[in-house]
Amino acid sequence: MRVSSGWSPRLADAGAPTSERLVTALAEDILDGVVAEGERLPAHRALAEELGVALGTVTKAYAELGLRGLVRGTHGRGTFVSYRASPTSGTVDLAMNMPPRLLSDEVIGDALAASAHRVDAEVLSACGPPGGRLEYRRTAAAWLASSGLELPPEELVLAHGAQQGIVAVLMAVGRPGRPVPVYTEEVTFHGALSYARLAGHSVHGVPIDRQGMRPDLLDRMLALDARAGAHAGIRPVVYVTPTLQNPTGATMCASRRRELVRVARSHDVLVIEDDVYALSEERTAPALVELAPERTFHVSSASKALSPAIRLGMVKAPCAFRPRVADAVRSLGLPVSPLICVLLDELVGAGIASTVRASIRDEGARRTALAREQLGSALFLAPKTGYHVFLPMPPEHARRLAAAAQDAGVLVTDPDSMLADPQGSRVGGVRLSLGAPPMAELARGLSVVRDLLGAAPTPSGK
Amino acid sequence: MRVSSGWSPRLADAGAPTSERLVTALAEDILDGVVAEGERLPAHRALAEELGVALGTVTKAYAELGLRGLVRGTHGRGTFVSYRASPTSGTVDLAMNMPPRLLSDEVIGDALAASAHRVDAEVLSACGPPGGRLEYRRTAAAWLASSGLELPPEELVLAHGAQQGIVAVLMAVGRPGRPVPVYTEEVTFHGALSYARLAGHSVHGVPIDRQGMRPDLLDRMLALDARAGAHAGIRPVVYVTPTLQNPTGATMCASRRRELVRVARSHDVLVIEDDVYALSEERTAPALVELAPERTFHVSSASKALSPAIRLGMVKAPCAFRPRVADAVRSLGLPVSPLICVLLDELVGAGIASTVRASIRDEGARRTALAREQLGSALFLAPKTGYHVFLPMPPEHARRLAAAAQDAGVLVTDPDSMLADPQGSRVGGVRLSLGAPPMAELARGLSVVRDLLGAAPTPSGK
Repeated sequence: MRVSSGWSPRLADAGAPTSERLVTALAEDILDGVVAEGERLPAHRALAEELGVALGTVTKAYAELGLRGLVRGTHGRGTFVSYRASPTSGTVDLAMNMPPRLLSDEVIGDALAASAHRVDAEVLSACGPPGGRLEYRRTAAAWLASSGLELPPEELVLAHGAQQGIVAVLMAVGRPGRPVPVYTEEVTFHGALSYARLAGHSVHGVPIDRQGMRPDLLDRMLALDARAGAHAGIRPVVYVTPTLQNPTGATMCASRRRELVRVARSHDVLVIEDDVYALSEERTAPALVELAPERTFHVSSASKALSPAIRLGMVKAPCAFRPRVADAVRSLGLPVSPLICVLLDELVGAGIASTVRASIRDEGARRTALAREQLGSALFLAPKTGYHVFLPMPPEHARRLAAAAQDAGVLVTDPDSMLADPQGSRVGGVRLSLGAPPMAELARGLSVVRDLLGAAPTPSGK
Repeated sequence: MRVSSGWSPRLADAGAPTSERLVTALAEDILDGVVAEGERLPAHRALAEELGVALGTVTKAYAELGLRGLVRGTHGRGTFVSYRASPTSGTVDLAMNMPPRLLSDEVIGDALAASAHRVDAEVLSACGPPGGRLEYRRTAAAWLASSGLELPPEELVLAHGAQQGIVAVLMAVGRPGRPVPVYTEEVTFHGALSYARLAGHSVHGVPIDRQGMRPDLLDRMLALDARAGAHAGIRPVVYVTPTLQNPTGATMCASRRRELVRVARSHDVLVIEDDVYALSEERTAPALVELAPERTFHVSSASKALSPAIRLGMVKAPCAFRPRVADAVRSLGLPVSPLICVLLDELVGAGIASTVRASIRDEGARRTALAREQLGSALFLAPKTGYHVFLPMPPEHARRLAAAAQDAGVLVTDPDSMLADPQGSRVGGVRLSLGAPPMAELARGLSVVRDLLGAAPTPSGK
């Protein structure tokens, strides 16, 4: 339904305050391209009358949308959409695990322009102290605090993205030239697997359930391997993603986390906690780094909760390992671009980072809801948040489904790349990344996968 | 000598065309802070009359300075200095090997602002194809072409800086978990040494002379080690910097390069050519990658010849290794920031990159001339270009000199970090990086080192 000014919002889903519902409705239509860049929104007063809400409600909603970079008010002329929805393309990309694009071009452009005058000899200086310049670590700590995790800036090591942080930790915990046994979820982040293999580490897949890695089976595997002498003189490492695990979407409850820490302590192993998908400021369970700071490497980033353009990774290492992690980051090349640090600082300072993080969480929830609707019981989990879902099935089915989807113009992540044990894996599956495509394309992609699931054999033999 | 408008140039050093000499004189005084940011330069006509040159000569010189970002014309008001010289600080930093800061804040700011409108969903996409998006590889190839090396964009792999490129190559040439024997100059780039050690590779220091690595001795070492079984099943790698070697400043002539290639071929070893210091568009000798493309990994970057802010590394690998190098870059984390690629593209496109590269070469020559003047015969080489010089001396003298210099407020690179064999090294020395400090500070730093050399024992026993 369009009004004279081109557009009128739906206001369904009662429950939340009216201004929030208005923001949600407006934002969705802008993100989906229902109202295009440059279109003028209804005047405040006209919209308030049409919807029967207070004028202040509309004003508040428009202001919030302005902060998100979705609209821009031009004095005396009205409020215009300033977000360009991604163009639809032939192929639906469910392969790249990118956050929904909520940081608008215009907001990044503004932050870049605002950063421009802060670029000076200091900013350009390539080498800071190990771990990164303190002011940038403060920005990183402020970013982490906005997800509810308070870590002292002095204890952070900055990296060029979370993956560089993980690589640096794997270098720092090993001895030169000696492989480290890495225990991880049987399906997990392909980037960590790929480095571990190239570096010659041995990877051990720990069975998962709906809360992720199973501590009881980790316990048993560590005990057996230790008895078989697999750890001779080397401390094994557990690489685990307790929140919104990639690819399964599993999140561990507090007691599962405590149990994992108990097992790690009893075998004296180190833990790499990949926390890049922590999107919420209200954590429902403590981070492993809070439960076992003496053995946990906490790795996080700004890319997955903000934008892939903001490539800043951060590692909190146990005290004794911090210099080695910083050294490892340095040995991997120039660690973090100061331009990116300045950019993040602009975004955190203006409150944009938190707003965008919340929007990404909301948009992720909308997209996973769509996936639940389309794929229902075929999903490993029906997460209420995050922006990736997982269809469990035997590896050979997963390969076949991925190929068939590609033929139908839908890309999914290479199923084998996520397997801790590509040869012997009993489990496997297809990850669907919901963040990248525009909503209409996502719907089409999901329906293609649903049809293929109906046609192809699934693990339960449907 | 100051005129009413605040400043008048010296025009000594006849030889070059007048407008070039004018540019040089003006640029030096701006870089040195003799004329400060915001000062107005003499009017074109007034300066032409004062110097007795044609009006066009002054106009041309001012335009060139404008392109470099050192001055800015304001219509009807005159030409103003737009470069802020680095503030003098207490400490003279001769440790960080940074190019002289010739890319002005204003030019970077302008390029950032110009990039801002190019930031869109495409640019933000984190994952491109392995090796980087083709348009960015074209930018990288255009940058390389401006240093006289033509490489096809399709064959380049982009990385987050040259060091990430070197690390990726070292990962790609080895087998998982098995150390690679790395042969390199007995003093060399500490970043490569530091990764090689952390990854457990064995490092072998090849003696150098005034042209860098000695192929005859490399030949002998490879033969002996092969006979001793040191290479069992693994192809050794030679990591070498043929142009403006770091730290010695040595550059190999064409026949030395051919001899090195002959040795590499006869032992069938791989070669990593670190070419980050190629500053000139007129190469005096072919690159190793041109002589032996079948075994040479050519690594370059934009950081050392342009600005540390532009962290774009590029690797040209032998055909069969290209996918492995691209994989290794990916396994190290997000490879290269698209923002940086767009920024470089802005700078290359506007002709600024070439101009700044030439200015950095000229400024480097001015700084090495100062080092020759101050330190003369104590230098390993008296290079006419580049921006680092090396004082050879036994490792224990080097450590003592570095400590004494630090006490006197002058930082130099940790001498041990550059040694291929820190325990057994016969050679050693102190690297002085001339690029970072303002000229006046550099002069003070060099005189401190000169005085310490006079006071302390030097290798020749002075």
